[in-house]
Amino acid sequence: MSEETVTSRRKVLGWTGAGVVVAATAAGGAVAAVRSGDDVQPAGAAGAAVAFHGANQAGITTPVQDRLHFASFDVKTEDREELVALLKEWTDAARKMTQGRPVGEGAVGGLAEAPPDDTGEALGLPSSRLTLTIGFGPSLFTTKDGGDRFGLKAHRPEALVDLPKFPGDALDPNRSGGDLCIQACADDPQVAVHAIRNLARIGFGKVAMRWSQLGFGKTSSTTPEEQTPRNLMGFKDGTHNVAGSDRAAQDKHVWVSAKDGPSWMAGGSYLVARRIRMHIETWDRTPLREQEEIFGRTKGEGAPIGRQREHDAPDFKAMLPDAHVRLAHPDNSGVTILRRGYSFTDGTDGLGRLDAGLFFIAYQRDVRDGFVPLQMRLAKLDSLNEYIQHVGSAVYAVPPGVRDEDDWWGRELFQNH
Amino acid sequence: MSEETVTSRRKVLGWTGAGVVVAATAAGGAVAAVRSGDDVQPAGAAGAAVAFHGANQAGITTPVQDRLHFASFDVKTEDREELVALLKEWTDAARKMTQGRPVGEGAVGGLAEAPPDDTGEALGLPSSRLTLTIGFGPSLFTTKDGGDRFGLKAHRPEALVDLPKFPGDALDPNRSGGDLCIQACADDPQVAVHAIRNLARIGFGKVAMRWSQLGFGKTSSTTPEEQTPRNLMGFKDGTHNVAGSDRAAQDKHVWVSAKDGPSWMAGGSYLVARRIRMHIETWDRTPLREQEEIFGRTKGEGAPIGRQREHDAPDFKAMLPDAHVRLAHPDNSGVTILRRGYSFTDGTDGLGRLDAGLFFIAYQRDVRDGFVPLQMRLAKLDSLNEYIQHVGSAVYAVPPGVRDEDDWWGRELFQNH
Ligand code: HEM
Ligand code: HEM
Repeated sequence: MSEETVTSRRKVLGWTGAGVVVAATAAGGAVAAVRSGDDVQPAGAAGAAVAFHGANQAGITTPVQDRLHFASFDVKTEDREELVALLKEWTDAARKMTQGRPVGEGAVGGLAEAPPDDTGEALGLPSSRLTLTIGFGPSLFTTKDGGDRFGLKAHRPEALVDLPKFPGDALDPNRSGGDLCIQACADDPQVAVHAIRNLARIGFGKVAMRWSQLGFGKTSSTTPEEQTPRNLMGFKDGTHNVAGSDRAAQDKHVWVSAKDGPSWMAGGSYLVARRIRMHIETWDRTPLREQEEIFGRTKGEGAPIGRQREHDAPDFKAMLPDAHVRLAHPDNSGVTILRRGYSFTDGTDGLGRLDAGLFFIAYQRDVRDGFVPLQMRLAKLDSLNEYIQHVGSAVYAVPPGVRDEDDWWGRELFQNH
Repeated sequence: MSEETVTSRRKVLGWTGAGVVVAATAAGGAVAAVRSGDDVQPAGAAGAAVAFHGANQAGITTPVQDRLHFASFDVKTEDREELVALLKEWTDAARKMTQGRPVGEGAVGGLAEAPPDDTGEALGLPSSRLTLTIGFGPSLFTTKDGGDRFGLKAHRPEALVDLPKFPGDALDPNRSGGDLCIQACADDPQVAVHAIRNLARIGFGKVAMRWSQLGFGKTSSTTPEEQTPRNLMGFKDGTHNVAGSDRAAQDKHVWVSAKDGPSWMAGGSYLVARRIRMHIETWDRTPLREQEEIFGRTKGEGAPIGRQREHDAPDFKAMLPDAHVRLAHPDNSGVTILRRGYSFTDGTDGLGRLDAGLFFIAYQRDVRDGFVPLQMRLAKLDSLNEYIQHVGSAVYAVPPGVRDEDDWWGRELFQNH
C-alpha cells in the first residue's frame, strides 16, 4: 500500500488530525497528561503522573490508587532472547502508558491498513496516576522438576521461597502462581484495564495470561494523613501500615538492600498476593460487638479497642488474644509488611452468594521474615478465619526500578547472568 | 441484655458517638450527603444526590454514572405477602442509600449485641450519584409451565416478551434471566457494590442472587454535551443516544404511557440486558481502517465516516452496508432505544484470554418495537458479529418511580391486583 493511499484513506475517514481535546480537571488532583491520537497534552496544574523512572518501582510506596487490575502470566516462549525482547518492549509501553501516552503510534496514529499500536480505550483519559509494577515468580527461575528454563536458576533469590501450605488454605491453581505478574493501579479502572490489556497484546504468543483480578476499591493506605478506606467487612483497613513518607521503615522492611543479595534485587521487593474470599453472609449476621472484637478495633472510628481515635496507640490488653490486629501488630508478631490490597466482587458463586473479598497484596524485604511467619500465625490463631478463606496465592520477586530511558524491566537479572 | 450493658460496652469499645467526618469535595461535583455512623452530613455546595422519588425511576435518563453493579435475583419465597414486605423494605433501604444514608440505624448506630443494619463499607463515602433501579422479569409473572406464582399472571405486560433466540446467541443460563433485577449505578463502585450487597442481605431467605455483573466503565452517554466514553474496542460509544434532556424523545421511545397499558406500568420502561463478550485478541489484530468500517465511525474523533466531527449527521452512503451504525441508526432501523451499557473484565477464560466485553443495557417503551427487531437485524447483518458473542440475556419490566415516602417499588402492580 502506498503512502498516498493511506493519506487519502485518512481523508475519506474524516481524519482531521486535531486529536482529542478533553477537560482535564480530574478527581484526585493527579493528572499530568491526556492521551490523544497524536500526542500528549499537558493538563495544567491539576497534578502529576507518577514517575516511571527511579531506584525502586512505582506502585509500592506510591500513595495507593483507587483501582487495581492485576495479571499473572505464564511464559510460553522457550527462547531467552525473545523473553528479553518482550521485557524491553513492555518497559517501553509501560513508560508511555504511565505518563498518559498511548503505546507506539497510538490508536489512530499509525497506518490505516495496520492494526493500531494502542487499543484506544484510554484515549482522552488522563494518566490517572497509573503505575505498572512487574514481578518474577519462582517458576521463571526453576521448573517443577528442578530444571533451568532460562539460565536463571542460580539467580533465584533465596528470599523468593515457594509459599508453604498454611492451615485453612483452599487454593485454586487457576488463580495461583504464574511466571510473571503485572500490578496495574490507577484511579480510573479503565486506565488500569487498558494497560494490562495492551501489555497482554504485546506479549501475544510469548506469554499467556494465567489469571487476572480486578480490584474495585483500595483497602489500604500509605498516606496516614488521608481518609482510610474500608474493606468489605465495613472496617477501616490500612490504618497501621508502612507510610509512603517513612523511608527509614521502607529501607528496613520493604526494599531489598545491596547486602541482602542477590545483587540484581537491590532496590527491589517481594510481593505476596492472596485472593481471600469473605463469607459475607455469615459476617453480616455477626453482632457488631463480636465484629469489633475480632479485629480489635471499633467499626465506626477504627480506634483500637479501649482507645478513642483511629491513630491512637493500641492497648493490646483490652483486645481478645485472638484479635486480628493484636496478632498482626509488629509489636506482637515481630513482622512489618507493607499492605496494598483491594476489594473484589466477581459475580456470584452458583449458590446465590457474592464471590467477594479481599485481594491481599503485601510487599516486604524478605518473604521468609514477612508474610510467611505472619500468615502462619494468623492462619492458626486469628478469630477472623471463621469468616474468610484463602483461595488464590502467588509470590514474586519485584526487581528494582527502571533507571532511565535506556533501562528495562529485569535488566540487572538478565544482562549480568 | 440491658440498656446499661450496651452503654458500658460502647464505652469499652471506645465509641465516642462522634461519627465520621469526611472531606466531601468529591469528583463529579454531585455529592449531597456523606454517610456517617449517626446521620448524614451536608456536603456543602459540591452537588446533589440523585432524587429517589419521582414519576419515573432514576438510573434510566439520569446522566450515566461511571460504574455499575447489576444483580439478578430469583424469588425463593412462595408467599406473596412476604414478597411485598421485601419490596417495601428494599424501597426503604434504596431511598436511604441513594441519598447517602446508611440502611436502618447504620453500621454502628444499633445495639452492639446485634448485627449492624448496614454493612458499613460505604461509611464516610458520599452518595456518588447512586441510583437503584428495579425490574420484574417474565418469570415473576408466569412459571415455565404457564403457572401463576403470585397471582400476577394476568398482569404481565404484553410488551414483556420472552426474548427470541437470535442468530449467534450462545447464552449461559447462569448469566441469564431472573425474577427481579436491581441496577446500581454510581460514580464510586464501592457505593454500588455496597447497595447491592445490602439489598441482598435484606432479602436473605426470600430471594437469592442468580447472577451479578460489575461494570467498570460506562460505554454510553445521556449527556451529549459531555465527553463520550470509549468501549473496550477503543471507540466512542454513546454518541447518538436518547439524551437525558430530551423529554419528547423519552416519551416517544423510553417511557410507557398510560394508554400503552397495563396501567401499573405507566411511567415505567423495559430493560434488556445482554452480556456481550468481545473477542478482544482478534479485534486487536484488525487494521484500523477495517475497525472504522465495521462501526461506520472514525476511531479518534468518533465522526461518521466521511464527516469531520463526532456529532455531525451521518452519511450512510459513505458507510459499508453492514456497518454497525448504519444498521442501527433509527433512520435505517426504525428503532430508537436508550443505551446505558458498561464495560466489564471478569478475569480470564482459561485459554489465556481476558473475559471482557460490553454489558449492554437498553431501555425502551416496548421490547417488541425496540431491542427485538433491532437485534434481529444486527444479529443477521452486522459486520461486528465476527468480534462479539452474546453470552447472557435478560429482560425486565421496570415499574414507574416511587412517588413519595409512603410509596414502594411495585405498589401499582401488587396493590391493585
Ligand atoms: C480478608 C482478610 C483480611 C481482612 C478483612 C483484614 C482486615 C484488617 C483490618 C480491618 C485491620 C485493622 C486496620 C489496619 O491497621 O489496617 C488489619 C490490620 C492488619 N492486618 Fe489484616 N486483614 C486481612 C488479612 C490479613 C492478612 C492475610 C495479613 C498478613 C498475613 C494481614 C496483616 C495485617 C497487619 C500487619 C495489620 C496491621 C496490624 C497493626 O499493626 O496494627 N491481614 N487487617
Ligand atoms: C459489543 C457490542 C457492541 C458494541 C461494541 C457497540 C458499539 C457501538 C458504537 C461504537 C456505536 C457508535 C457510537 C454511538 O452512536 O454510540 C454504536 C452505536 C449504536 N449501537 Fe452499538 N454496539 C454494540 C452492540 C449493540 C447492540 C446489541 C445494539 C442493539 C441491539 C446496539 C445498538 C446501537 C445503536 C442504536 C447505536 C446508535 C446508532 C445511531 O443512531 O447512530 N449496539 N454502537
